[in-house]
Amino acid sequence: AGRIQKSREPKVVLSDKDHFMNAFDRIVKELVKDKEQHPKELLDYLDEMCRYNIPFGKLNRGLAVIQGVRSMRPALLKDDESFFRICALGWCIEFLQASFLVADDIMDESVTRRGQPCWYKLPGVQVKAVNDAMMLESLIFVVMKKYFNRHPKYVQLIELFHEMTYRTCKGQLWDMMTAPIGEVDLTKYTMERYQHIVKYKTAYYTFYLPVACALTMVGVEDSKQYKIAETICCEMGEFFQVQDDYLDCYADAKVLGKVGTDIQDNKCGWLVCQALLIANKSQLEVIHEHYGRHCEESISKIKELYVELNLEEMYKKYEEESYLKIKSLIEDKADRVSKGMYTWLLGKIYKREK
Amino acid sequence: AGRIQKSREPKVVLSDKDHFMNAFDRIVKELVKDKEQHPKELLDYLDEMCRYNIPFGKLNRGLAVIQGVRSMRPALLKDDESFFRICALGWCIEFLQASFLVADDIMDESVTRRGQPCWYKLPGVQVKAVNDAMMLESLIFVVMKKYFNRHPKYVQLIELFHEMTYRTCKGQLWDMMTAPIGEVDLTKYTMERYQHIVKYKTAYYTFYLPVACALTMVGVEDSKQYKIAETICCEMGEFFQVQDDYLDCYADAKVLGKVGTDIQDNKCGWLVCQALLIANKSQLEVIHEHYGRHCEESISKIKELYVELNLEEMYKKYEEESYLKIKSLIEDKADRVSKGMYTWLLGKIYKREK
Ligand SMILES: [Mg+2]
Ligand SMILES: [Mg+2]
Ligand SMILES: [Mg+2]
Ligand SMILES: [Mg+2]
Ligand SMILES: [Mg+2]
Ligand SMILES: [Mg+2]
Repeated sequence: AGRIQKSREPKVVLSDKDHFMNAFDRIVKELVKDKEQHPKELLDYLDEMCRYNIPFGKLNRGLAVIQGVRSMRPALLKDDESFFRICALGWCIEFLQASFLVADDIMDESVTRRGQPCWYKLPGVQVKAVNDAMMLESLIFVVMKKYFNRHPKYVQLIELFHEMTYRTCKGQLWDMMTAPIGEVDLTKYTMERYQHIVKYKTAYYTFYLPVACALTMVGVEDSKQYKIAETICCEMGEFFQVQDDYLDCYADAKVLGKVGTDIQDNKCGWLVCQALLIANKSQLEVIHEHYGRHCEESISKIKELYVELNLEEMYKKYEEESYLKIKSLIEDKADRVSKGMYTWLLGKIYKREK
Repeated sequence: AGRIQKSREPKVVLSDKDHFMNAFDRIVKELVKDKEQHPKELLDYLDEMCRYNIPFGKLNRGLAVIQGVRSMRPALLKDDESFFRICALGWCIEFLQASFLVADDIMDESVTRRGQPCWYKLPGVQVKAVNDAMMLESLIFVVMKKYFNRHPKYVQLIELFHEMTYRTCKGQLWDMMTAPIGEVDLTKYTMERYQHIVKYKTAYYTFYLPVACALTMVGVEDSKQYKIAETICCEMGEFFQVQDDYLDCYADAKVLGKVGTDIQDNKCGWLVCQALLIANKSQLEVIHEHYGRHCEESISKIKELYVELNLEEMYKKYEEESYLKIKSLIEDKADRVSKGMYTWLLGKIYKREK
């Protein structure tokens, strides 16, 4: 009996996150075992580039694919290889995100990301980061081909990633055209523009993409279901970005993991768009004089104005209303099978503090 | 009879280049008529970005697709829509090239390209160029989906572009790891490394991609034919890049359309690799002291050394040998159908002066 006891492996229950992280390691190892003959130095750089930029943050985008499949067709997670493939698809989204973040940090001239130096700031990287952003995007399709090339939805998945990449690029472009570095033109900061930017630069790849991946994997073919997903996900995406903008100014820096800089960086965020909408003439002057400046005095002036305008309260009201709106969208539009996935996603973002 | 005469359209014979340019106009117009609702300002930027960066240079990559189809299965060019589709595929290669050039100019800190300022240097562009490079890549697949989505080789074409993009990214990375800006380490400049860089950063997308596109369009399915194409095209690619490096130093600037700067930019080019291979001890010292420096004296010292080492003659010899090697590769390996295409390509580059 002792022997039998000994030969039994202790039963370790892995969480989705554990499975997901293990899959990352396998994916990168297999990427670096390139079928092409490349010098070790090149492959080491690739490995480092992936590990520095991809497996960080909350990973909610990738995990949402697993969660979506779990709530719609859990049988797909029973078999190890099938579970791995769902993880790989989730990682494709995180590769895309990494590609956009590497590029975004260069364009925004950012210094840190997730508490460490931005990739392009590393002495061994610098301008190569531009190529790395393109490489990260390429890697999506290397991964996709490796693990999905015989999957019946292979083409649909590829087209989905292409389309989301294109939309995100357009969102980034519109964001930068609205708020160019070193140029303050607040007449462009309208709520309408804000909503358009946010939908394209954030909502599609952050919410619609994981949801559409999950729908595709579980075999949903009805285009109506994808339209509904788009409606719900774009609402969530706006909600998520408004929170992001609010947290940038009001969150505890220790919890958030960074000190917000949207005010001095002249960002077209929800707070300033809201302020411009309700400010009186003298308050408008304060905004025009102090927004987008780096001195402490200007930052304080803007923060004081936000207090004067009760923006924190307006945000709470927006959050509550938006939450209810999304809840009822889910109630009204989502079918029985997908409801759980949307509710899980909403739960992930509602009242978040980071 | 006079009337009939009058109503007859004068028969204008369009060259491949004319067809190709007309197709560009249609493609961009249809891209900008986005099914998504976007502000006019955004679409105007897209339009300008495409027109500034894509339809320039010799367009040999795109035209090679037409030429390949013409020599292997001319019937595909009889019908207007079918001809247009071949052109669109050719433009996909030019979009990819534009994406790489926009990114390359940022990374190389270049100032001009084809006699006009580099895209990222324009006051209205700047850092947005990073996003534009990614957007140009995205556009390939928008074009591909629009015109090939029901084509039996749709997936094969997409995978081909993915693979070539990935290989070019790896070539660019290896190039920059070999010759980082502002850092001179000539021990890395070996012929072996040079050949690897050139194959990946140039040969695949410049020669193999158009040839593989043409083979795919005319219905070649035998993987052996693609292997042969790879062998021939990688040889041509090396030949082409060696010429490029030679012309950078020795061509008439007026014919070339630019003043070469490889010496001062510390490029890992054929001439310096060759020089390092044959120089004696004191000549090596000259290279180490003067290569990669911007002062006129250093540039002259390197050019004098090149004369001393007879590099121009060595190049002529290389050109002749490489030409013969490629010719016999074509003779020996290419089948009857594809021979014409390879010969046309070789003719385009042999003894070129720009
Ligand atoms: Mg940013
Ligand atoms: Mg940004
Ligand atoms: Mg933010
Ligand atoms: Mg360059
Ligand atoms: Mg370069
Ligand atoms: Mg050159």
